[in-house]
Amino acid sequence: MAAAEPKPPAGVAAARRLARGCWSAFWDYETPKVIVVKNRRLGVVYRLVQLLILLYFVWYVFIVQKSYQDRETGPESSVITKVKGITSSEHKVWDVEEYVKPPEGGSVFSIITRIEVTPSQTLGTCPESVRVSNATCNSDEDCVAGELDMLGNGVRTGRCVPYYHGASKTCEVSGWCPVEDGASVSQFLGKMAPNFTILIKNSIHYPKFQFSKGNIENRKDSYLKHCMFDEVSHLYCPIFRLGFIVERAGENFTELAHTGGVIGVIINWDCDLDLPASNCNPKYSFRRLDPKHTPASSGYNFRFAKYYKINGSTTRTLIKAYGIRIDVIVHGQAGKFSLIPTIINLATALTSIGVGSFLCDWILLTFMNKNKVYSHKKFDKAGSGPEAWLGPA
Amino acid sequence: MAAAEPKPPAGVAAARRLARGCWSAFWDYETPKVIVVKNRRLGVVYRLVQLLILLYFVWYVFIVQKSYQDRETGPESSVITKVKGITSSEHKVWDVEEYVKPPEGGSVFSIITRIEVTPSQTLGTCPESVRVSNATCNSDEDCVAGELDMLGNGVRTGRCVPYYHGASKTCEVSGWCPVEDGASVSQFLGKMAPNFTILIKNSIHYPKFQFSKGNIENRKDSYLKHCMFDEVSHLYCPIFRLGFIVERAGENFTELAHTGGVIGVIINWDCDLDLPASNCNPKYSFRRLDPKHTPASSGYNFRFAKYYKINGSTTRTLIKAYGIRIDVIVHGQAGKFSLIPTIINLATALTSIGVGSFLCDWILLTFMNKNKVYSHKKFDKAGSGPEAWLGPA
Amino acid sequence: MAAAEPKPPAGVAAARRLARGCWSAFWDYETPKVIVVKNRRLGVVYRLVQLLILLYFVWYVFIVQKSYQDRETGPESSVITKVKGITSSEHKVWDVEEYVKPPEGGSVFSIITRIEVTPSQTLGTCPESVRVSNATCNSDEDCVAGELDMLGNGVRTGRCVPYYHGASKTCEVSGWCPVEDGASVSQFLGKMAPNFTILIKNSIHYPKFQFSKGNIENRKDSYLKHCMFDEVSHLYCPIFRLGFIVERAGENFTELAHTGGVIGVIINWDCDLDLPASNCNPKYSFRRLDPKHTPASSGYNFRFAKYYKINGSTTRTLIKAYGIRIDVIVHGQAGKFSLIPTIINLATALTSIGVGSFLCDWILLTFMNKNKVYSHKKFDKAGSGPEAWLGPA
Repeated sequence: MAAAEPKPPAGVAAARRLARGCWSAFWDYETPKVIVVKNRRLGVVYRLVQLLILLYFVWYVFIVQKSYQDRETGPESSVITKVKGITSSEHKVWDVEEYVKPPEGGSVFSIITRIEVTPSQTLGTCPESVRVSNATCNSDEDCVAGELDMLGNGVRTGRCVPYYHGASKTCEVSGWCPVEDGASVSQFLGKMAPNFTILIKNSIHYPKFQFSKGNIENRKDSYLKHCMFDEVSHLYCPIFRLGFIVERAGENFTELAHTGGVIGVIINWDCDLDLPASNCNPKYSFRRLDPKHTPASSGYNFRFAKYYKINGSTTRTLIKAYGIRIDVIVHGQAGKFSLIPTIINLATALTSIGVGSFLCDWILLTFMNKNKVYSHKKFDKAGSGPEAWLGPA
Repeated sequence: MAAAEPKPPAGVAAARRLARGCWSAFWDYETPKVIVVKNRRLGVVYRLVQLLILLYFVWYVFIVQKSYQDRETGPESSVITKVKGITSSEHKVWDVEEYVKPPEGGSVFSIITRIEVTPSQTLGTCPESVRVSNATCNSDEDCVAGELDMLGNGVRTGRCVPYYHGASKTCEVSGWCPVEDGASVSQFLGKMAPNFTILIKNSIHYPKFQFSKGNIENRKDSYLKHCMFDEVSHLYCPIFRLGFIVERAGENFTELAHTGGVIGVIINWDCDLDLPASNCNPKYSFRRLDPKHTPASSGYNFRFAKYYKINGSTTRTLIKAYGIRIDVIVHGQAGKFSLIPTIINLATALTSIGVGSFLCDWILLTFMNKNKVYSHKKFDKAGSGPEAWLGPA
Repeated sequence: MAAAEPKPPAGVAAARRLARGCWSAFWDYETPKVIVVKNRRLGVVYRLVQLLILLYFVWYVFIVQKSYQDRETGPESSVITKVKGITSSEHKVWDVEEYVKPPEGGSVFSIITRIEVTPSQTLGTCPESVRVSNATCNSDEDCVAGELDMLGNGVRTGRCVPYYHGASKTCEVSGWCPVEDGASVSQFLGKMAPNFTILIKNSIHYPKFQFSKGNIENRKDSYLKHCMFDEVSHLYCPIFRLGFIVERAGENFTELAHTGGVIGVIINWDCDLDLPASNCNPKYSFRRLDPKHTPASSGYNFRFAKYYKINGSTTRTLIKAYGIRIDVIVHGQAGKFSLIPTIINLATALTSIGVGSFLCDWILLTFMNKNKVYSHKKFDKAGSGPEAWLGPA
């Protein structure tokens, strides 16, 4: 059958020869031609520059910045908190159930340190607070019936009535009466508050690296019933005195308990997962989070009420609570060896080492005695050049 | 002692000579030999390609994308909120304590705009809701005693009793009675709700760059008592009208107040920390977060109750609350000059500029008139080559 | 005016000529001189090394790791939850309003499965719990009046009184009486709890890519009223049985319901935004989040109270609730084609492909028969060298 095949025409034969040539050229090895300059001063400069770049990469990029690692920030985190302690105001003993809001033990909770109680509010009519704008009046004409002040306490009835105390008069409102400003009583709960203990159970998980860890000692004995947090000796005992937290945040406890405020307990899990898991430890820091000196709504407070039904009518105790809100904030980053960033950084390092030759080429061609010779050796001239276009100088 | 040292044998001397040769070769400077092609058209192409690549890096990579910066996303954030306002339904005045749940002023809270109240529920027996599957009955045989429907209101007693209203009959259940569907009364609180004001205090912290900032003006006067948020003139007055938030989220207030919904107030802190701190400003955006048109559990509502004890027996008022939930979501990223990304991107830029020579080499060897000459100049042939293996063409 | 211009002096003319020379040199094209080694074995090695590096980049870096994409982690997320179901203990029927805390339907909520009720606590005096350290006493001398134990229940009155039951005596305290340890009654709510259903509405938004998606089917029919989550056939029906969640987290329901615990429902949105949006689907996983076997405060519980006013004096029902806390955790990352990472990785790939020539140069100069010849061809020697410094060997 091969014999039956017709002889290819000349063009095809030429194309075949070309293809064969290309194919054989494909397997040629090409390497740049290099000039070796036997000059020790230049060689020393060249090697020094390379050494500097190498040192920078080895020490800073790879050792300090750990650029050979793949990173993950923002671990999945779960926080369970539990406050323990008891305090007393003048007439009353307060337990955890009363001073911690909300009670569920999440990552954000408030410890109430001062309250302003307005007991026995009922829906009815009473004088508006003097603090509300345009609330003071001389006669009924000053009060528009049906008016609703957004920052007031109810709908105006249109009458001007004597205030709770003193000689002034304010417009009467229909709402929860008496209003807070007229009848509230202050109580300070913060006396024993610095001794409250807060247990913060935190466990984190880095999904990319399948790594989990908790901040709590896994011991079978009663260690956790008696220990207290200490960075050096009791790092895995996450039980904090409230006073310790406030002090570490740089705040004055009495002042903070009076005005309220938000303290962040920041847990930082900075983990090098190339090392054993025992090297991945939480780092705690404490910081005041709310702006301290803003005039509007400075500090931290909120209102809640307890509702009662007495003889069929609803009564409530309104409580304005000042307290220390604890925000447990968890962040962190984990790093683990990974090929891609390693190769990217290595390739960058190799490229950068080549930068040294730019400098040396410049020195070679500019400062060396025999630079004409070197220039002649380095550069082969080819082509007619642009002289024809520019004409003689 | 030196004189006592024996003369090294010939082999050692040769090794020494070799080591000394290597050592001296180590300090040689090597630089690639370069062909200079004096052809202006090719030079122009070469420089143009280089210019394009350079422009891309300088403008896009470095100026637009700021690739010379180290970045951190997801700042630590703390949010304190406070709602102010008062509203009225037909019979009653509602204050913040009643319509904001939970009251603690965190980053997620609901403003109740409509309620369905089932007053005076007690533990007892009553007809099941007609909405529960298989609740309607004709006789006691239709009701299995002790059955507990997961979506019902209690354990069936086995009796078939007349419904609250109308002529139908349903199975009797033991639970909190009367059931919601039979006795609830609707009240709309949303009349004044668009005028409620919400103060959102937010402070962020980028731990990597040790940078903190808040969204609130640090002024000593009463500015924050009277201002209202405005992107242009009052960016640092984070007091929002609820109506403004809903409108900016593109929703109809009346509709939203009726069905409930979740609105996200998204605060974005995009900061270039190479500039002064005053250039790092919050950007607010508002977006409806819950799916609007899903048939199951569309909108947003939840149930809570108030418990009373009357003559020793427990009574509760069950409230199904429809409301606008506000989720304050804080995100952001900060960038600051850092050596590593700068060097990586510079090295990439230099490598990429070299890409221009690929193109020009190809033009040089393919299209130039004297390409045979250039080819001869560029390539030095060496070695016996593959001809011996392939045989003559 | 041109004629009035003076002829420039000779130095200026020389400078001009130099500048013109530089200018014309700037447009020269420079390309490295290359040695072509016609050796097929070396060529094969060279191409094989290049092929390996190319394969690594194409397959691993670009296809597996998608390094050509810009990435964003940590989407903005909004979670709305709703629990449905009804359960019964010995004497009572419990509905959602009673066993879900907090009721607002956020991303973290607890389903109470067991309670210890201390009914009818009033402010008064009663024996301290025997569990409190130093609470047991023989006579009044053992009790210091005014002492406040942080882990106790009130201020000591100084008297030693008989305990609630048994023959022991403890110090009397002033506080909420009777104390929990003396009078609490346990009730188990968890009987029907595995059948509770939890609806988890989640919507995410990647601000960098302006991409939003929810985890809920957008169907107009009543599909969502009857469906139940299933990874294969009902991925977009996010309604979960509590028993399903606990089982998937690898926990025993009865045990968990007894001691309480925290279960994470982790929703992972890993999205390749180069593909259509329908390829970006949520992936659910379930994991126990609290440490199971820690002795202190193992499991999950919290206390809350209901306050009543009876004949003017306040009474409360203290409830210690054990429950299953569900933490809905949303994370994810999105990737989309972007020029910068593509170019960085391409440049790295090109640089790395060049690494093959290092290997081949070394083979060429070390193992080839004619390496003297190649060495002579590759290296041009220039300069006087270091011989003058070192002297003859």
